[in-house]
Amino acid sequence: MRKFLLIPDSFKGTMSSGEICSIMEDAIINNYPDAEVISIPVADGGEGSVDAFLKAMGGEKVTVTVKGPYFEDMEAFYGVIDQGKTAVIEMAACAGLPLVEHNPDPSKTTTYGVGQLIMDAIHRGCSKIIMGLGGSCTNDAGTGAAAALGIIFTDTAGNAFIPVGGSLKDIAKVDISKLLPELKDIELITMCDIDNPLFGETGAAYIFGPQKGATPDIVKELDAGLKHIDQVVQKDLNLSLANLKGAGSAGGMGFGMVAFLGSSLQMGIETVLDTVKFDEMLTNVDYVLSGEGKIDTQSIRGKVVIGIANRTKKANVPLIAIVGDIGDGIEEAYEKGVSGIFSINRVAVEFKDAKKRARQDLYLTVDNVMRFIKRIDER
Amino acid sequence: MRKFLLIPDSFKGTMSSGEICSIMEDAIINNYPDAEVISIPVADGGEGSVDAFLKAMGGEKVTVTVKGPYFEDMEAFYGVIDQGKTAVIEMAACAGLPLVEHNPDPSKTTTYGVGQLIMDAIHRGCSKIIMGLGGSCTNDAGTGAAAALGIIFTDTAGNAFIPVGGSLKDIAKVDISKLLPELKDIELITMCDIDNPLFGETGAAYIFGPQKGATPDIVKELDAGLKHIDQVVQKDLNLSLANLKGAGSAGGMGFGMVAFLGSSLQMGIETVLDTVKFDEMLTNVDYVLSGEGKIDTQSIRGKVVIGIANRTKKANVPLIAIVGDIGDGIEEAYEKGVSGIFSINRVAVEFKDAKKRARQDLYLTVDNVMRFIKRIDER
Repeated sequence: MRKFLLIPDSFKGTMSSGEICSIMEDAIINNYPDAEVISIPVADGGEGSVDAFLKAMGGEKVTVTVKGPYFEDMEAFYGVIDQGKTAVIEMAACAGLPLVEHNPDPSKTTTYGVGQLIMDAIHRGCSKIIMGLGGSCTNDAGTGAAAALGIIFTDTAGNAFIPVGGSLKDIAKVDISKLLPELKDIELITMCDIDNPLFGETGAAYIFGPQKGATPDIVKELDAGLKHIDQVVQKDLNLSLANLKGAGSAGGMGFGMVAFLGSSLQMGIETVLDTVKFDEMLTNVDYVLSGEGKIDTQSIRGKVVIGIANRTKKANVPLIAIVGDIGDGIEEAYEKGVSGIFSINRVAVEFKDAKKRARQDLYLTVDNVMRFIKRIDER
Repeated sequence: MRKFLLIPDSFKGTMSSGEICSIMEDAIINNYPDAEVISIPVADGGEGSVDAFLKAMGGEKVTVTVKGPYFEDMEAFYGVIDQGKTAVIEMAACAGLPLVEHNPDPSKTTTYGVGQLIMDAIHRGCSKIIMGLGGSCTNDAGTGAAAALGIIFTDTAGNAFIPVGGSLKDIAKVDISKLLPELKDIELITMCDIDNPLFGETGAAYIFGPQKGATPDIVKELDAGLKHIDQVVQKDLNLSLANLKGAGSAGGMGFGMVAFLGSSLQMGIETVLDTVKFDEMLTNVDYVLSGEGKIDTQSIRGKVVIGIANRTKKANVPLIAIVGDIGDGIEEAYEKGVSGIFSINRVAVEFKDAKKRARQDLYLTVDNVMRFIKRIDER
């Protein structure tokens, strides 16, 4: 009996990782009706990440009342996996862009609720917290979450306040002495797949501000605020993190998670693979199937497929990559451990048309590879 | 040591069969440096067919002075293979469209030279003749070739003449009593991959006349001529062939080859496979690679890839199809013996752009499949 392990990234804007798993499984069962198929939908840290972890590992969804983007009370959630030891939080649950659909303004919104979710997970007894960034409506550099966990930001007059994007510039001092003491015993991992620094042309405000509703003037203000909080952190915490890769993710949340809460930033796929104990799962697996919307030279520098290849190679399990487009110059992927790369482009059409056929083409492409494997195995 | 047999159809308008063989071989050797690779470029009957047979089997190219499209003397050629036993003729050598580039007129051109090539091959001692249709500038229903071999066409006044497209209507009688007697001991096979009947809306004149330079009026005249020659053949030879599949190929040459010369019409790929003794060649072959510009439900009804699949399936050799587009509903191809079908479409672009990348994409696609096979074999 064959054993297959499916762990595809989403095809961004086309199919979710879970949907891809389901289509791949159908195509496998069409050829190997008795096969054992294990699906691991890949969380990218954004909306749906908690569900992806719960689907892959089982666990419980916890609902908590916390502050929303405008400090309003709201119901948010996080996931508890690994026999209650690990919490998975997606910041979008209480600081997500869909929550401010009608009045987005990253100069006014807070990540305070995210801090409350962390607090709740700690009080529940979790010793490890995985934080998913992505899909945020905030630009507060994580100061809101930090404030919720006890960090005190004061202005020049010495008054404590909870900063938002527009008031980062008013922070004169940051005091971490009242930070929730339990945090130091918690393993806090932040999933982060983007490289942007905190501020500047490629920073959080200029790159992601506009899609969160910031006008050019507000972008400028937000960027100045991020620059300012970096100086305060340098002065008071003796940390220089503005150019840390990913500091600029989620409106500076990447920066804040590291600066205020002592988190590590980790590639999302590595977090997923570690969390699901991927290396152990590979035992007796005949084929791993992964994939992503496009494999290109950028993917080779550490996205989903290559992250998985590093591990399947060590375990000597063939890795089949099913992708949308195959970019030029990706031969290195084979050296890294990918056994075969198959595009779902079955007819020569533009992406806008290919997208409409994606589900069918994915099924047929996996079906073809399965038929082929079966034929070679039978020889 | 692995042994590969390559037998791709051309990707029409993009790459010739020979070119595809060469690219496939490079990609195979990149992965299996010691592999034995046998290439069989597939002749389709048109221009280049003689060279394809010579390349696949070795042999000799014979040059002969014969009549060209306008009865002018010209140098044409045919191939002799199989220790001199078999001649391969492409009618385009002396009745091809490029020969009348500046004055095409299918109402005036002749296949007389094609008959002379057949005669020369017979006098040289060939016992089998393979005739390739395709790329012709004529619409004489093969009457020119027939005349060159002794058949007498007479008008109502009893005068013998050599008909052309425009004078088919003048034929009152066809007399086969003076046909070159050696012909009856010759195995004469006409390669023909199209289904068109002799005349009518889907006949030779209406479908292929315009691309040979016929105006709408001439098309009408040609069609009437084809209808007329069919009636004469019915009357004098007691044969009703107008609806024979392929009768309308090459300006009615398919019809004439059967009616006047007693040829059989055969799928091009079957002719190639028989001629190269494909079944014997399969001995010890690990993989056969074929391909075509598009595999679709039409291909499944008997084009190159499926023709090959019929044989590889019996011999239990895996058949890998490398194609341009993969049409919908082609799952039957697997049942017919295709082991895997891989499109060279690596990025989602329209055909006009895909075409420019075809050579590179073909190489990379075959390279990927080879890497994959190797990986699975090594497991």
